[in-house]
Amino acid sequence: MEIKSYIENNKKKFLDELFELIRIPSISAIKDYDKELRKAATFLKNQFDDLGLENCEICETEGYPIVYAEKIKDENLPTVLVYGHYDVQPVDPIDLWDSKPFEPIIKKTKIHPEGAIFARGSCDDKGQMFMHLKAIEVLKNTTGIPCNIKFMIEGEEEVGSDNLEEFVRNNKEKLDCDIILVSDTGMIDKNTPSITTGLRGLSYLEVELTGPNRDLHSGLYGGSVANPINSLAKMISSLHDENNKVTIPGFYDKVINYSDEQRKEDDLIPFSINEFKNSIDIDEVHGEESYSTQERRSIRPCLDVNGIWGGYTDEGSKTVIPSKAFAKISMRLVSNQNSKEISQLFIDHMKNITPAGMKIKINEHHGGEPYITSTNSHAYLAASQAYESVFNKKPFAVKDGGSIPIIAQFEKILGVKTILMGFGLDSDAIHSPNEHFGVSNFYNGIETISNFYNFYSNKI
Amino acid sequence: MEIKSYIENNKKKFLDELFELIRIPSISAIKDYDKELRKAATFLKNQFDDLGLENCEICETEGYPIVYAEKIKDENLPTVLVYGHYDVQPVDPIDLWDSKPFEPIIKKTKIHPEGAIFARGSCDDKGQMFMHLKAIEVLKNTTGIPCNIKFMIEGEEEVGSDNLEEFVRNNKEKLDCDIILVSDTGMIDKNTPSITTGLRGLSYLEVELTGPNRDLHSGLYGGSVANPINSLAKMISSLHDENNKVTIPGFYDKVINYSDEQRKEDDLIPFSINEFKNSIDIDEVHGEESYSTQERRSIRPCLDVNGIWGGYTDEGSKTVIPSKAFAKISMRLVSNQNSKEISQLFIDHMKNITPAGMKIKINEHHGGEPYITSTNSHAYLAASQAYESVFNKKPFAVKDGGSIPIIAQFEKILGVKTILMGFGLDSDAIHSPNEHFGVSNFYNGIETISNFYNFYSNKI
Repeated sequence: MEIKSYIENNKKKFLDELFELIRIPSISAIKDYDKELRKAATFLKNQFDDLGLENCEICETEGYPIVYAEKIKDENLPTVLVYGHYDVQPVDPIDLWDSKPFEPIIKKTKIHPEGAIFARGSCDDKGQMFMHLKAIEVLKNTTGIPCNIKFMIEGEEEVGSDNLEEFVRNNKEKLDCDIILVSDTGMIDKNTPSITTGLRGLSYLEVELTGPNRDLHSGLYGGSVANPINSLAKMISSLHDENNKVTIPGFYDKVINYSDEQRKEDDLIPFSINEFKNSIDIDEVHGEESYSTQERRSIRPCLDVNGIWGGYTDEGSKTVIPSKAFAKISMRLVSNQNSKEISQLFIDHMKNITPAGMKIKINEHHGGEPYITSTNSHAYLAASQAYESVFNKKPFAVKDGGSIPIIAQFEKILGVKTILMGFGLDSDAIHSPNEHFGVSNFYNGIETISNFYNFYSNKI
Repeated sequence: MEIKSYIENNKKKFLDELFELIRIPSISAIKDYDKELRKAATFLKNQFDDLGLENCEICETEGYPIVYAEKIKDENLPTVLVYGHYDVQPVDPIDLWDSKPFEPIIKKTKIHPEGAIFARGSCDDKGQMFMHLKAIEVLKNTTGIPCNIKFMIEGEEEVGSDNLEEFVRNNKEKLDCDIILVSDTGMIDKNTPSITTGLRGLSYLEVELTGPNRDLHSGLYGGSVANPINSLAKMISSLHDENNKVTIPGFYDKVINYSDEQRKEDDLIPFSINEFKNSIDIDEVHGEESYSTQERRSIRPCLDVNGIWGGYTDEGSKTVIPSKAFAKISMRLVSNQNSKEISQLFIDHMKNITPAGMKIKINEHHGGEPYITSTNSHAYLAASQAYESVFNKKPFAVKDGGSIPIIAQFEKILGVKTILMGFGLDSDAIHSPNEHFGVSNFYNGIETISNFYNFYSNKI
């Protein structure tokens, strides 16, 4: 049977299976969901068993387990390692969801008139990761699996992949491969495919600023002691200059500056500033002086406050000067910035600018290194052909603003590059309320991935 | 019997009764406590009945009721109106309390070796207000009540006394009096009495800043859209200049500037900057250039953020650019600033400095006008004598940094000045965890107030 027909005949089955996985609320950031993460891992192991893969295993780590499976056809054939994750982001603010985050439903949207799956994880990464399992099923029932395949699906990507690196280090032989394949990125639009050739790195820190040793009455003390919220606001404000450049000394020292030629080429990638603004309902874009919006979110580093809190935040009013104020602050990094170095620069700088009378404590959350890869490799060209075979368009090579920290680690430990074949859209609202994934993206993804194996193994 | 002896003989009874009142968690800021506020009002009405007062009444308002009671001895005698409040501040952060906020216990402290009552409301204002009820009991059983007395105890002081003003307007005749007496302020220290002759006003607003229409992935969007938290931090930061002056245009226009003579006189009021710093564990004070710490918290206006929130504030990390960021911001005002005017200046200025691409919404919480009074009135001199009779020291006249917005309204509506006879200490931690009130302050307060009536009525 042909690949296209098999997918056509199994559309409902594929969706039903994905829904089963999505219904497991595997939120890795919140400890209460421990059991759900294990349930998701077991679901995957059962799927791998059903697909006839071998050595299917739930590998325990100090955190959530990594699910491994493989199909070794012939040691002389090339080997593809598929990486993905079964954990998802938290769902808050829950009241902004139009449906239950873990009860997937299909709804039509402007962009997806044929319907999109609305649920946490529908795109990131359950939907995208599950396409790879289904591509194996497709190949098995059509052209046959043309090369060796390994799967490594983790449960801690959304909290920094803390235990994956050690797992990879300890299992170099088991994970030996020629190329790594990942679907956790996006396309330009539903009909314009792209392959991600760059990822940003990440430094993520939490700041606690302490002023007085207790909350104070803002009448009796107001005006005479430094207020930690005002002070933290001032510190945060000073982290960008009037050109929206990050002011941390040394922050830009290792940033790669692209040539005018390269910048011009990147400028050919389709992008509508109006659609961008409309999609998130803003009047004006904002960012580092003398760079385009696309550059600001791909080849330039940045700093954002991801969360802030302090004082009285309940209904009504309380006249208090709080003892403490807090912020979660992250920086997206580009080559050749180093996450540890940048975190240290941040810590040193924040300590330097802490006002007299205040104490600061800074904790590091997970970080990750930036990544870039070329467009000339055999695997890249196979991926490009695979997209073209389904979308009738050559994919663009784009640099993505997000981070998949483990990709840089894979290269460092295994010496292997990764091909990032993404099928999500910017409008999918990953990490946000009402995350969704187009059903046609899902089916086209399965077909593209199936074709990739045949191109990569020179079977087409 | 003598006043002193009666108090001595009834110490335990007075405390037990106060404890009963404190155990009612009458938090006016949080709607769930509705029943508790009514319970506190009923407790007071029963007390007034037991004291033999007349026309004791729970007067309904659109919010929480006002408890009224009176004793008219003779229409030719002067009339004192006692004002206080039975509502209390919220208790959060609850985990910083060493004991249950609504289970009063006596603990010894450095400042109160004879013990202090630890509980929410122990000082503000249940402890201080209840002294007035007990002073009536004392007078009744000793020298007799020497003048007419009226009580008006409200349940919405901590949320802006929204319904008290209308009540006063509608009951001018009922509330007709010669002087108003209030204990909701402090003394300089346990052995150094003071009478408050100035109060700051208050403008309190809540700001909601909206950027993108939904929470965004900080990787895919970071660097290319304005982040509402960073923008709010910048706006807040800009509200003070390098001399810690508030930058809102017109903010200082109506502030009374005191003469050097007056400032020198105020400088005689005992104040230890080291004790101040040690008591709240800060290395440095902070505030408006060219004013002393005491001036910054009494005769100068100020601006503080009382609460801030936005983005991900739970455990761990979430890589999000939030759609919205919020802050509760209040300003303390001094004569002749006007709360409505200052709120409007704040709103106009915040709108002016809202960055492109952001939308701002500002709601007003309660406000209040500043208040000043003279030290030459008959009532002030009677209060001064009363303090001297108990503490053997003439009280200082001090301007207080806090706000009791209704005091200015009393003057406006009833044409009557207020004497602020406070017995709390700065270290009492009102509005904070572990609020407390010295038991000796409580007993000395009852005695001082009892004596006040006799001095005021020329009976001593």
